[in-house]
Amino acid sequence: MIGKHMLMIPGPTPVPERVLLAMAKHPIGHRSPEYSEIQAEVTENLKWLHQTEQDVHILAASGTGAMEAGIINFLSPGDRVLCGCNGKFGDRWAEVCEAYGLSVERITAEWGKPLDTEQFRAKLEADTDKTIKAVILTHSETSTGVLNDLETINKHVKAHGALIIVDAVTSLGAVNLPVDELGLDVVASGSQKGYMLPPGLGLVVVSPKAWTAYETAKLPRYYFDLGKYRKATAKNSSPFTPPVNLVLGLQAALQMMREEGLENIFARHQRLTQATRAAVKALGLATFAPDECASTAVTAVAPTTVEAEQIRSTMKKRFDIALAGGQDHLKGKIFRIGHLGFVGDRDILTGISALEATLIELGGDSAQSGAGVEAAAKALNRH
Amino acid sequence: MIGKHMLMIPGPTPVPERVLLAMAKHPIGHRSPEYSEIQAEVTENLKWLHQTEQDVHILAASGTGAMEAGIINFLSPGDRVLCGCNGKFGDRWAEVCEAYGLSVERITAEWGKPLDTEQFRAKLEADTDKTIKAVILTHSETSTGVLNDLETINKHVKAHGALIIVDAVTSLGAVNLPVDELGLDVVASGSQKGYMLPPGLGLVVVSPKAWTAYETAKLPRYYFDLGKYRKATAKNSSPFTPPVNLVLGLQAALQMMREEGLENIFARHQRLTQATRAAVKALGLATFAPDECASTAVTAVAPTTVEAEQIRSTMKKRFDIALAGGQDHLKGKIFRIGHLGFVGDRDILTGISALEATLIELGGDSAQSGAGVEAAAKALNRH
Repeated sequence: MIGKHMLMIPGPTPVPERVLLAMAKHPIGHRSPEYSEIQAEVTENLKWLHQTEQDVHILAASGTGAMEAGIINFLSPGDRVLCGCNGKFGDRWAEVCEAYGLSVERITAEWGKPLDTEQFRAKLEADTDKTIKAVILTHSETSTGVLNDLETINKHVKAHGALIIVDAVTSLGAVNLPVDELGLDVVASGSQKGYMLPPGLGLVVVSPKAWTAYETAKLPRYYFDLGKYRKATAKNSSPFTPPVNLVLGLQAALQMMREEGLENIFARHQRLTQATRAAVKALGLATFAPDECASTAVTAVAPTTVEAEQIRSTMKKRFDIALAGGQDHLKGKIFRIGHLGFVGDRDILTGISALEATLIELGGDSAQSGAGVEAAAKALNRH
Repeated sequence: MIGKHMLMIPGPTPVPERVLLAMAKHPIGHRSPEYSEIQAEVTENLKWLHQTEQDVHILAASGTGAMEAGIINFLSPGDRVLCGCNGKFGDRWAEVCEAYGLSVERITAEWGKPLDTEQFRAKLEADTDKTIKAVILTHSETSTGVLNDLETINKHVKAHGALIIVDAVTSLGAVNLPVDELGLDVVASGSQKGYMLPPGLGLVVVSPKAWTAYETAKLPRYYFDLGKYRKATAKNSSPFTPPVNLVLGLQAALQMMREEGLENIFARHQRLTQATRAAVKALGLATFAPDECASTAVTAVAPTTVEAEQIRSTMKKRFDIALAGGQDHLKGKIFRIGHLGFVGDRDILTGISALEATLIELGGDSAQSGAGVEAAAKALNRH
């Protein structure tokens, strides 16, 4: 049977029919009053989602483009920055900084472990000359399923005074992230994650403090010059042609998110995460990230007696479910289950029952028939 | 009546139902074999469209992002470049170059006039030390409806040896642009134009000579680092998450273009252009760009006795047709009729008959009833 594919990867995530149909509308001119009205609504709802009074800017770019914009608009060549690196994406932001000639210090942790907040504290406290201009970190590390302790690191950054630039690509819309309350300076995200949209939009919000840094920041930029977006967004416009149909989809997705409510969205992601983790453990598989720093977007699983890639290919072949593999040195060592965005309780039961069937078929690990679904069901009940 | 809007702007252009429905499909994982197959087909068809043996790279970006990538990957700070500036977009590429610290010399022409090829020749011939590293120009200037004489300028560039970087945003797919035959080094375009797609994709093709320049080019880049795209495209992959649904749309659009055939596509755009221009003149309105350098994407019209903005608003209010206004200092002085992409003979008759009715309603210019449609019909017949 074809056409019955199920996405359980951490992006692109499933897209609701309402959003797909909104995207299938004929485009309208992006300089028309009708488009301005749509953008006004979208901006308002993005502010609600980010829990901020600041405008959220929409870029035609992937999440990486949005993060690059979030870095290069506020820094100058040679500026000293701290980068939290405990996965593929943390590493990537350090690479972006190096590509632009920043002086990068990596605070690393083993992949699968959270960043050590004390290392940030020590580095920042030692910097009495305030040479550190920004701290850059990934909130939810998609490559490992680790949720870094943004709140504690942010406290240390606030005590120091540097900017804090956050990759919230798989945390925004999956876990509470009150941008203004935390005083985050730059928060970047991408459409194909919690937004329940296909990829193609990058989103960035900027604090007043970061806008002050923008005034003197000297790294070159044009397409990613957020000052151009700031001016345009204030007039419900865009500096360059926006991806009109993706914005129509975003309008529909944000309406759905408002209908569900922020608290419900966060509780749902928490519930799906707990159910997935309980089930994986009941099936005798190890979760890769510890419980206390579990991402609510993605669970990485490290099977022992069965090959990760064998599980992935059987899930695909037998049940047409896409799971993500490991990245870089984790290739073949883990697989990743996405439970982010347009994912409900039934989807977790579906995924877990297929995983259980897969393990039975492959005969590996200590899979006990029924154990995964039972554990998931109980966890879904509890939360 | 609502829902019967008609786009006659030079982007976003109309999108075929087949493309809209392809975009409304549920996304698939961008690291799956299924996606690689789609990308392989798309790359093959993009090469056909560009008449090149080189891979064409797909960026999640607007046309401006694609042009920025086309500039910054091949140059170093302080490099001397010539920019052809005879409209909003030519001016923009000079601004991009300045934002990156290049040494820019503008070769300007009045908006509405073509670039003077002799000025390029003179500058290039005088540069015996070969300090000019690149010549950057806009093929079809969307802001004025001028098609610059790329072939002649390219000859002078070839005689000199600099790179030639071309904004083909509204020329690709609307006029013959044999990239390899002309030996163009970088050609950038955007999805919402001749491609018959909504905005959101930037496309760039790079010559072997430009790839050599890439090796020593020092301008900073990461998201727009075309070397990353080069490696990925060769493996039918992408360095960052691609806009999956727009690529599904691109697949459908390119299939439609292949079914129509390149020669037919170019002939159609030529026919629509001639019909539009004949009709506009018959209605007593002046075409802004001379016939000998008419863009096949857009016709700019300079009305005399009726206000351009009044014509636009009446076309919108009475017939729900969107025309584009003038940009920057041409605001209010011209309006622009797009005839690019998914536009057929009937659309031109529709647009012209509505323009005729609008002029009758507004009572201005020397509109003679029936003259516009008659002239368009005759021109459509002739070509």
